[in-house]
Amino acid sequence: MRVGRLYGVGIGPGDPELLTVKATRVIAEAPVVAFFAKAGRRGNARGIVDRWLKPSHVELPLYYPMTTESHFDGPPYREALKLFYAESGATIAAHLEGGRDVALLSEGDPLFYGSFMHLFVRLRQRFAVTIVPGVSSICGAWGAAETAMTWGDDSLVVLPATLPLEELTRRLTLADAVVIMKIGRNFLRAKQALTKAGMAERAIYVERATMDGERVMPLCARSDDAAPYFSMILVPGRGRRP
Amino acid sequence: MRVGRLYGVGIGPGDPELLTVKATRVIAEAPVVAFFAKAGRRGNARGIVDRWLKPSHVELPLYYPMTTESHFDGPPYREALKLFYAESGATIAAHLEGGRDVALLSEGDPLFYGSFMHLFVRLRQRFAVTIVPGVSSICGAWGAAETAMTWGDDSLVVLPATLPLEELTRRLTLADAVVIMKIGRNFLRAKQALTKAGMAERAIYVERATMDGERVMPLCARSDDAAPYFSMILVPGRGRRP
Repeated sequence: MRVGRLYGVGIGPGDPELLTVKATRVIAEAPVVAFFAKAGRRGNARGIVDRWLKPSHVELPLYYPMTTESHFDGPPYREALKLFYAESGATIAAHLEGGRDVALLSEGDPLFYGSFMHLFVRLRQRFAVTIVPGVSSICGAWGAAETAMTWGDDSLVVLPATLPLEELTRRLTLADAVVIMKIGRNFLRAKQALTKAGMAERAIYVERATMDGERVMPLCARSDDAAPYFSMILVPGRGRRP
Repeated sequence: MRVGRLYGVGIGPGDPELLTVKATRVIAEAPVVAFFAKAGRRGNARGIVDRWLKPSHVELPLYYPMTTESHFDGPPYREALKLFYAESGATIAAHLEGGRDVALLSEGDPLFYGSFMHLFVRLRQRFAVTIVPGVSSICGAWGAAETAMTWGDDSLVVLPATLPLEELTRRLTLADAVVIMKIGRNFLRAKQALTKAGMAERAIYVERATMDGERVMPLCARSDDAAPYFSMILVPGRGRRP
């Protein structure tokens, strides 16, 4: 009996039109479409692909064990996540063993900070996997900001705001262009680090890029203590330009 | 009279199926499709969108002034490029002033090391511009390598191999995950820097990702002195994974 194939499908930063042609084809052809969601929600990924789903699709929501970030680093959360990924992997494996291809959706690109990766490393030894690259959330963000990011010999440094302040600052000083992700309740620390590195003045705050409610403003215009999940800070490079 | 709109259209890393749905729509609707190419060639971008072009499209190839990298940093090349961008901008402006929308193609994403950016900054004051984000070449590369790049608190550092050895090495030591671009004749220097930073053993070499002739191998398996234009080196991160 034929065993199914797992597809890791990047679905882009939010705008449903930013799916690739390949992603729409893979979704159309896969009998099972799996996606991550917070418990009790439909899930952002499911919303993005809504127009690409048919009634014949088997939908497989994978619900995260907790809905807040508050214990993100604690051992109980890590254990819960481990169990969640094991169970999700088993559910997907059952479909694959039954001969059904599974398209597992990933916001942005599947191999860049994606939950998909945790199932990928668990399933790739046993099943054939195809990666469908997607438009990364960082490209969505600087596209929304209409900001050219890297010129000539510029380097780009992508930093999660979850790093300690000293670490953030140290890495900023060796960067030309910068993206700070995972801002959320780390927003003030990110701002502090950018100020220490002398980059705060040219930093841009982007929220919900390519989605409803998209907002772009200079970082210094944003005075709140925290930022929503779908937000980033950009510092464009200033390298060689003829 | 209506003035045209400029679209900066990311067309992805090479596979024509990795255009976004939005990119195919914008191209279909634009009367003029402009793209960069080396003199005497059809151009890689033109090849990628071949299936999306119609006979009714006005094609506007923009030919780079030189075809080799050899004088890339010299003042004569910079002057020639400056003139080239000015002339290309004027050609596009004439179409826009004539009321014709122009889709200017950009391999990968338009705001990440793209030639598009040089026309964008020249034309954005005078004309309405829409950015269509694309699948970046770096996402294409790690997708081809089937390598999960960034986990948990990993940072990603993207470095052009054109930087001096000391500078490359210094920046590598503060990186978790790494992409080295613009390898070409800087291949050996990139390899040296990775060796000094203790990263060479887990580095992956990727050539022509998502295109015909795609090759993926451990960096240490590649002994040549140089690498072709469409090549990159990846070092995946090793951050938190439950």
